[in-house]
Amino acid sequence: MARRVVVIGADAAGMSAASQAKRAGGDALDVVAFERQGWTSYAACGIPYWIAGDVAGPDALIARSPEQHRARGVDVRIGTTVTGIDLSAREVAVEGPTGADRHGFDDLVVATGARPVRPPIPGIDAQGVFGIQTLDDGAAILAWLDALGGVDGSRGRAVVIGAGYIGVEMAEALQRHGLDVTVVDQAAHPMSTLDADMGDQVREAMEALGCRMVLEAVVERITVDADGRVTGVVVAGDLFPADVVVLGIGVRPETGLAVAAGVPIGEHGGLMTDDRMRVVDADGAPIPGVWAAGDCTEVHDRITGERIHVPLGTYANKQGRVLGINLGGGSARFAGVVRTAIVRVCDLEIARTGLRERDVAGLGLNAVSAVIRSTTRAGYFPGAEPMAVKAIAERGSGRLLGVQIVGRAGSAKRIDTAAVALWNRMTAADLADVDLAYAPPFSPVWDPVAIAARKVAEAARSMPAVSDRMR
Amino acid sequence: MARRVVVIGADAAGMSAASQAKRAGGDALDVVAFERQGWTSYAACGIPYWIAGDVAGPDALIARSPEQHRARGVDVRIGTTVTGIDLSAREVAVEGPTGADRHGFDDLVVATGARPVRPPIPGIDAQGVFGIQTLDDGAAILAWLDALGGVDGSRGRAVVIGAGYIGVEMAEALQRHGLDVTVVDQAAHPMSTLDADMGDQVREAMEALGCRMVLEAVVERITVDADGRVTGVVVAGDLFPADVVVLGIGVRPETGLAVAAGVPIGEHGGLMTDDRMRVVDADGAPIPGVWAAGDCTEVHDRITGERIHVPLGTYANKQGRVLGINLGGGSARFAGVVRTAIVRVCDLEIARTGLRERDVAGLGLNAVSAVIRSTTRAGYFPGAEPMAVKAIAERGSGRLLGVQIVGRAGSAKRIDTAAVALWNRMTAADLADVDLAYAPPFSPVWDPVAIAARKVAEAARSMPAVSDRMR
Repeated sequence: MARRVVVIGADAAGMSAASQAKRAGGDALDVVAFERQGWTSYAACGIPYWIAGDVAGPDALIARSPEQHRARGVDVRIGTTVTGIDLSAREVAVEGPTGADRHGFDDLVVATGARPVRPPIPGIDAQGVFGIQTLDDGAAILAWLDALGGVDGSRGRAVVIGAGYIGVEMAEALQRHGLDVTVVDQAAHPMSTLDADMGDQVREAMEALGCRMVLEAVVERITVDADGRVTGVVVAGDLFPADVVVLGIGVRPETGLAVAAGVPIGEHGGLMTDDRMRVVDADGAPIPGVWAAGDCTEVHDRITGERIHVPLGTYANKQGRVLGINLGGGSARFAGVVRTAIVRVCDLEIARTGLRERDVAGLGLNAVSAVIRSTTRAGYFPGAEPMAVKAIAERGSGRLLGVQIVGRAGSAKRIDTAAVALWNRMTAADLADVDLAYAPPFSPVWDPVAIAARKVAEAARSMPAVSDRMR
Repeated sequence: MARRVVVIGADAAGMSAASQAKRAGGDALDVVAFERQGWTSYAACGIPYWIAGDVAGPDALIARSPEQHRARGVDVRIGTTVTGIDLSAREVAVEGPTGADRHGFDDLVVATGARPVRPPIPGIDAQGVFGIQTLDDGAAILAWLDALGGVDGSRGRAVVIGAGYIGVEMAEALQRHGLDVTVVDQAAHPMSTLDADMGDQVREAMEALGCRMVLEAVVERITVDADGRVTGVVVAGDLFPADVVVLGIGVRPETGLAVAAGVPIGEHGGLMTDDRMRVVDADGAPIPGVWAAGDCTEVHDRITGERIHVPLGTYANKQGRVLGINLGGGSARFAGVVRTAIVRVCDLEIARTGLRERDVAGLGLNAVSAVIRSTTRAGYFPGAEPMAVKAIAERGSGRLLGVQIVGRAGSAKRIDTAAVALWNRMTAADLADVDLAYAPPFSPVWDPVAIAARKVAEAARSMPAVSDRMR
């Protein structure tokens, strides 16, 4: 008899796992995937671009439909919500189009993803307040924007709460719909994934794009009309009228089902796994037959050795693949992360990898940093665009700890150079020596990442007394 | 009394060395640089773009003028040719605007660069046949092109001999001048720095741009009119009429002065140095007080451990910097190269790093390769451009040996990811695991370089009997 695999959640992590397992295990595995919404394997990262009109969604965002998965032998049940997990009885309770049911398993894959943070403020549940996490969210906000009539001669007003990745992407998307956009954040600068000095460059660029940035400000409440529709956001006593509100405050691991079944979670609220993607208990021992991948898990940070929660599509895909190979009888390990991330806002590119200065202090590391300004191409070459690179290194050892980039077209993907360097625990001086590609249309003779690495390597050798870069 | 330093050659390598030495050594060093032409510290790599009209040359290409160098304490003598080196007497013979002279030194920096290969064929010295190596070469060909009248209703006909970096860049530049361009090469595909399969993609692209590609063909002679002007090129018995001919066959280290002074050269014709940029003899022992950097030297290849000759501006700058620091009393080492190079032809981008398949066989390595096709952005994202990546790895160990990229805008600078991987002797499987940056405007979820690394890692694990990729 075939081994029964139940997958909860049919997005990137779950369906990568299901596909790989079925591919490796073939008829020896009987794989069922339950998905409460109507879609499978979609590029959630593309949703803001769908809303902006760059991408013809939702079809273009779907890597593989339920039918395509079924053709490959995975029994996908869309519109079916798992309501409970019974680890002793080895079964899940489900509610779907045909009513409630129970479904037995030998192996369980938890790929329940994450949910947008909805702060407990008055009005948060008003019509016109949207999280941006699923294709349904995308369809809902697009319908809402279509229905908005012109307001006072404009297309209307939007408030985005939170200036992280989703917040800045959605600010651009809403501007593209002709809305007047205000972005609110508690921090002093957008992109808290960057240090303040680099984040401030993002603020300047977003203001130049016409976004109103309301920073170091707490949202008190959302105002609502008699029909339950949003009318505005009160921030530090000021009312910002709004026809639509987007929540970009971040996400939390969706672990309710697993927790209810007695599975422990980590410090950051995610399921804990080993590098084979087996869910582990508080002592690090695998829970037999329980696996997890994607945004509902914590990941191993290679730099600090800590578990962290970083919900990214790349991790979901990689973890799902590793999980599926192991589940199918093969052997694979998820090697961890170095916190690489990238985002584009209009023609501004933003990337980071490794630790920020603000992370370093808390870890007992003695670090220095350097910020340089250079260009994406040789300075004399047409299309050379400005870019700033910040590099952080450990004083003394000179070990590279992190890099951040803010610049125009052609800047940010260079972060990969630093990511590979961090992966190999290189010193900043060694990164500066690497034989990086140069020709005038591609780079100055010294690549900007190498320049920053050289500068921070020099700072890392200097004595504390003569360095003003010390934190 | 100050130590006397003589620098021969005032381009990237020589003047990086002179500047760094003076910066570090200050008044303890008396630095004189002799340059037979009229320019210092220029970006030779930019010359084809100047000729193409992308760059306002030659001023834009000059990083630092003779006057600027003098203001920093380096005594630059332009228009002054060093005619001999006497290592016993510790002096050089020079001929300059004020006649012949001799100049003593304690330390000698040889930065004489490289010269274009001029094959010994009839007509090679005709008017209208140009190498592209110096700013004077750029000015000369531009004057020639300006003087060309319309020929048969077109702006004229050009033949480029050699389809390497300079050849393909010049093919584009000449097309931009309205010329009908033919490119001739002995090899079966352009860009012999790539393997045949990737080079063939370059051929297709160049033909699509309107270049006539004459491959696997030997140039027999250059035809000349009664005034000594070029009229055509005879290739394998066929005459290709030409109003201008460009030599892009490569360059050789310019070591005549050093050789005449008794300094030995390496297998590839370049001066041999240690990693501090001291010139060494055949036994590897430094020759006291003799230094060298740039295109006249051989460089250490980190992958094979061999000395190779790769004339690149990045190496010249890095070696010059290292040389200058050591000469000025500091301590620095040139860490070697992994053969990274990049070029653009119209909207086609081409890059390579590490070894090609053809290199591998000669080294006794058992290697496999994989070629993948992907896109520069998420497939559904506007502006996603095609790119092909070839990865080469050692069978069994899975060690990454080389990567080649051919693609459209946004492809080729990703080679740096592979360069850092090679630098760290990573396996292809490890490179595939690295936390590379992903967002839809920048990459598919799996970066194309990671996809290629994954594929070749799988091939490297396979048994010889089932792999058809073996070379």
